Amino acid sequence: MAVRVAVAGASGYAGGEALRLLLAHPEVEIGALTGNSNAGQRLGALQPHLLPLADRVLAETTPESLAGHDVVFLALPHGQSAAVAEQLGPDVLVIDMGADFRLKDPADWERFYGSPHAGTWPYGLPELPGGRAALEGSKRIAVPGCYPTAASLALVPAYAASLVENEAVIVAASGTSGAGKAAKPHLLGSEVMGSMSPYGVGGGHRHTPEMIQNLSAAAGEPVTVSFTPTLAPMPRGILATCSARARDGVTAESVRAAYEKAYADEPFVHLLPEGQWPATASVYGSNAAQIQVAYDPAAHRVIAISAIDNLTKGTAGGAVQSMNIALGLDESTGLSTIGVAP
Amino acid sequence: MAVRVAVAGASGYAGGEALRLLLAHPEVEIGALTGNSNAGQRLGALQPHLLPLADRVLAETTPESLAGHDVVFLALPHGQSAAVAEQLGPDVLVIDMGADFRLKDPADWERFYGSPHAGTWPYGLPELPGGRAALEGSKRIAVPGCYPTAASLALVPAYAASLVENEAVIVAASGTSGAGKAAKPHLLGSEVMGSMSPYGVGGGHRHTPEMIQNLSAAAGEPVTVSFTPTLAPMPRGILATCSARARDGVTAESVRAAYEKAYADEPFVHLLPEGQWPATASVYGSNAAQIQVAYDPAAHRVIAISAIDNLTKGTAGGAVQSMNIALGLDESTGLSTIGVAP
Amino acid sequence: MAVRVAVAGASGYAGGEALRLLLAHPEVEIGALTGNSNAGQRLGALQPHLLPLADRVLAETTPESLAGHDVVFLALPHGQSAAVAEQLGPDVLVIDMGADFRLKDPADWERFYGSPHAGTWPYGLPELPGGRAALEGSKRIAVPGCYPTAASLALVPAYAASLVENEAVIVAASGTSGAGKAAKPHLLGSEVMGSMSPYGVGGGHRHTPEMIQNLSAAAGEPVTVSFTPTLAPMPRGILATCSARARDGVTAESVRAAYEKAYADEPFVHLLPEGQWPATASVYGSNAAQIQVAYDPAAHRVIAISAIDNLTKGTAGGAVQSMNIALGLDESTGLSTIGVAP
Amino acid sequence: MAVRVAVAGASGYAGGEALRLLLAHPEVEIGALTGNSNAGQRLGALQPHLLPLADRVLAETTPESLAGHDVVFLALPHGQSAAVAEQLGPDVLVIDMGADFRLKDPADWERFYGSPHAGTWPYGLPELPGGRAALEGSKRIAVPGCYPTAASLALVPAYAASLVENEAVIVAASGTSGAGKAAKPHLLGSEVMGSMSPYGVGGGHRHTPEMIQNLSAAAGEPVTVSFTPTLAPMPRGILATCSARARDGVTAESVRAAYEKAYADEPFVHLLPEGQWPATASVYGSNAAQIQVAYDPAAHRVIAISAIDNLTKGTAGGAVQSMNIALGLDESTGLSTIGVAP
Repeated sequence: MAVRVAVAGASGYAGGEALRLLLAHPEVEIGALTGNSNAGQRLGALQPHLLPLADRVLAETTPESLAGHDVVFLALPHGQSAAVAEQLGPDVLVIDMGADFRLKDPADWERFYGSPHAGTWPYGLPELPGGRAALEGSKRIAVPGCYPTAASLALVPAYAASLVENEAVIVAASGTSGAGKAAKPHLLGSEVMGSMSPYGVGGGHRHTPEMIQNLSAAAGEPVTVSFTPTLAPMPRGILATCSARARDGVTAESVRAAYEKAYADEPFVHLLPEGQWPATASVYGSNAAQIQVAYDPAAHRVIAISAIDNLTKGTAGGAVQSMNIALGLDESTGLSTIGVAP
Repeated sequence: MAVRVAVAGASGYAGGEALRLLLAHPEVEIGALTGNSNAGQRLGALQPHLLPLADRVLAETTPESLAGHDVVFLALPHGQSAAVAEQLGPDVLVIDMGADFRLKDPADWERFYGSPHAGTWPYGLPELPGGRAALEGSKRIAVPGCYPTAASLALVPAYAASLVENEAVIVAASGTSGAGKAAKPHLLGSEVMGSMSPYGVGGGHRHTPEMIQNLSAAAGEPVTVSFTPTLAPMPRGILATCSARARDGVTAESVRAAYEKAYADEPFVHLLPEGQWPATASVYGSNAAQIQVAYDPAAHRVIAISAIDNLTKGTAGGAVQSMNIALGLDESTGLSTIGVAP
Repeated sequence: MAVRVAVAGASGYAGGEALRLLLAHPEVEIGALTGNSNAGQRLGALQPHLLPLADRVLAETTPESLAGHDVVFLALPHGQSAAVAEQLGPDVLVIDMGADFRLKDPADWERFYGSPHAGTWPYGLPELPGGRAALEGSKRIAVPGCYPTAASLALVPAYAASLVENEAVIVAASGTSGAGKAAKPHLLGSEVMGSMSPYGVGGGHRHTPEMIQNLSAAAGEPVTVSFTPTLAPMPRGILATCSARARDGVTAESVRAAYEKAYADEPFVHLLPEGQWPATASVYGSNAAQIQVAYDPAAHRVIAISAIDNLTKGTAGGAVQSMNIALGLDESTGLSTIGVAP
Repeated sequence: MAVRVAVAGASGYAGGEALRLLLAHPEVEIGALTGNSNAGQRLGALQPHLLPLADRVLAETTPESLAGHDVVFLALPHGQSAAVAEQLGPDVLVIDMGADFRLKDPADWERFYGSPHAGTWPYGLPELPGGRAALEGSKRIAVPGCYPTAASLALVPAYAASLVENEAVIVAASGTSGAGKAAKPHLLGSEVMGSMSPYGVGGGHRHTPEMIQNLSAAAGEPVTVSFTPTLAPMPRGILATCSARARDGVTAESVRAAYEKAYADEPFVHLLPEGQWPATASVYGSNAAQIQVAYDPAAHRVIAISAIDNLTKGTAGGAVQSMNIALGLDESTGLSTIGVAP
């Protein structure tokens, strides 16, 4: 029997990507699609790439429109998920693709988001130590941020194996879809094409505490993170260049061995052969993460680099993967490791 | 029982796209992968987006390596397909993604390709009048060129319904993957990003006689084609802007009615609602064609515009669609109308 | 003594490009910079590429702020130029980069713009027959639209030499800056990168009557124009692919001879050597137009293709060129034919 | 009297950019243009954006062709400059845009380039402490690498003011022109558009020792550098994200004060106002560097970010700037701080 899924916020990029993946999911039947300012419009006008749903019309995001589903994906602005989730009741699997329930420390939330903390839900990054167990049977899932997904997949093995010191430096380039579909002048094609630019520099980006949370948990002690996000002239993809000073005795071999062990059985994380480096194009539209790692003996640092699709593994693909686990389905159901390239 | 498929020329763009689609095809088992200069290399180094095949090694393209398959896709340089096909025997379904068997008139072939004509195979554009019947049960398929696919889907309904005069003007913009993976200076990223440029202007492009063949067949009389291809700064996609002078009595309504009728039941051709225009991003990685049509009363012309993914519907997707028909499978098996956007 | 120039609408793309060029103009002193919603902001925040003006602050667009200049460039929304020009008085050279004064026929204006016609000013395309004479000493200049500039430079020689019939087909690809700096969802980088899409199809684009005006004047009889603009994934540039049926007796040689004659002495229009085709990258940031022409004997059409930078030759560069003529300066002062490539 | 300048290697990107700038230089007369495999070709076919030189034909790079010039720019493959320079004699100003004479330590050269060291020339980064004095009157100039230019402008003030510890982490994104014009498959437009990818990770990039040389000189002690270059989907531009752990007592104010002081009088280095971050589009085609700096108290690091055009300030613009100093001209002659944007 099909799993009936609703998507609240179906007109944006995260909602659209969720629909793209759910359409290919053999166990899913797509139910209500809702929006706010776009309610009443055909999905074909808003998401012209989703032809099978072109004639569906967006409903308002209300308890009534979302009732009667097994799973509800929330792709809402920050701060709106708690109220919707409460109305859905405890038996519905609610998957929040926003930030509201990712952080454990209310002080972190309040400092970075400026509003009261709504709570913490099981965290949808199965590849973390203990990550799958936290999701099995859960009725609430907080989908990780796209940058924390990329950075954690790159650095957690190094911290879990105590290869590096507790100061990480992360510089990540993201495609523009990570900034959402709201029309802002600095996101115009004329502005972003041909340009690289940073933002949120110096610790201000809201994904910073989430990275610290994941890396510190892996390290078993507090890790500081210097995180610089940059906007790259491409629609999708994150390339995260992460490094930390190596601990004494670390070698190229011990680094590689730790990563090989960490990702030997992961269906979506692919450690590349030595000498090959990740490219975001290779994971375009795919739920895979491609990883490579190096030890620089002169700088005495471990450099770990990951490439993901920010909308797929970084948002909606990670959400579907976690949904599969929560529902007891095969984790890979409906998901692909094949990118659309070139 | 699975259909066993080999791909000759697996390191290029057409071969890679065929593999991307075949990996998602539920009836297919991927057999031999062959190349020439790349034989002996891991596919993971050549097509890093095809993770499930990363550890496969390319064989030489020989009768032995290609033996024992039900279907063989050929993604070879022009002029090489005939010899390979002959060696495969008449019981193997051979699908040529090159140009060798597309043209019916040997004189056309010789004028545009400068070599003796190898013959004509059933033409893999099911949406043409009589297109499916020609493919059912066939053991040989000539996959259309990407530009002729886009242009024919745009204009055949107008010619079939006698809406326009027999002089077509076609200007098409193609992503750079249409030019293949051979490293040429004018295809460098530094050259193509931020630039639009034409080539093969004035009737010289090799896809011109193929367009003439398709449009003339639909019209029932010779059609001339002025075709200008342009290179656009994107990896994939074709936008074909096609027009012809309207015949007397043609109206916006009669034009729309003809297209609605032509494509009402087509699984992969989508006539957009009035007021919405195709965008190549909407068909990125998809086998769909998005079409829109207009009548300009001042210029007295019908303008028909199509957007396809040159590698999918324009090459490997069309090939898989035709394979499905030839094998008696559901035509849509393993193919999607969902684009990867944004 | 320096020519004192003000720019009204300095925060947008046309205004910014005018400033970029005026900064390099040896006879110009830049005076007032004005805006509306952006008044009071530093130009450095709005146009961060114009470093020499970074600390200038935008004034409101008022008669007072614009008073006391020899030349005023208007980069205002359609319909606002007439009122501002009137206040400036007859002795100030007013150069309107908007559409208000381009069209001669009030009926054309009203049909395409839906408001009363403000009048007609001397038209700033010196390369038209009689174009320079109309500008010499003038105190009012209507800068042509970017598409009409590209299309007219491509086709006027063919019409002036009676080489082609009076039905032109024009398909043009434009960089996104042509759509301006207002934040609209379909102009987001996420939407436009990797995508080609048409708009205003079927005769609806406002530049259509302007093209008809120019081509008809060259032909000496009414010319119809089928014009399809497309949005290309690049910030700047227009590639216009233009064609018309050849008149009897036309040959490749007669076509080339007509273009060579037309552009032999033009400082900014460059007819490329045979075999070389225009690319928008070659005119990036330059005031040059690169042109090539072909005769297709099979389709019996003349195909003329032009590449310009829509913001430079297509807007602000053409404006400066016309200003130079109006002021009696050397036409090329401060302007370059060198593109920024790759 | 004009300075007569030859460019050896005029068909590549560095040579083309040198010509673009030299054409705008009021004191320069462009003399011989030479190439190797392209000798005998029109420059218009190789550099179609340089219209004023379109009809010039490339000579062979020989002592004869380069004789009789005041200045010779070398844009040659690594290892070829020494032989050419020797033949030119000591009175000609030779400006090497390649790597041959940048490194002081022969061991560094040999380890990274695998050939005998040719020597060390005065280093063409005037903004370094003592940088101008080293260039005045010099007859030999080694133009810095593009990445070291970006990284040094970002971090030298922090090291010179003893703000940071001696371990720098540099992640830089470069446009594809930095990889040159040689046609390699991974540089095809189809591969690079839509993709970010790293290369030379772990200390292997040849620009690493040059960065160490500059930063160590500023610090007065050895600095280690972890450098990761990435290829970004744009033709031009470098965004360098650089950081180092802050020394005790450092504050946001002390950091900003150091940078304000360092760059107060620099004509080409622009420290942005607080809150504004560099974008490579803002320096497109310009010789400016845009810089911003931040102190992250949680991570206890100073983050300095620079944006340059890799071909202009990063190569040919820096070369012209250094030429001006060497010749006793105003340093800014013929150079601009205005970018071509959007």
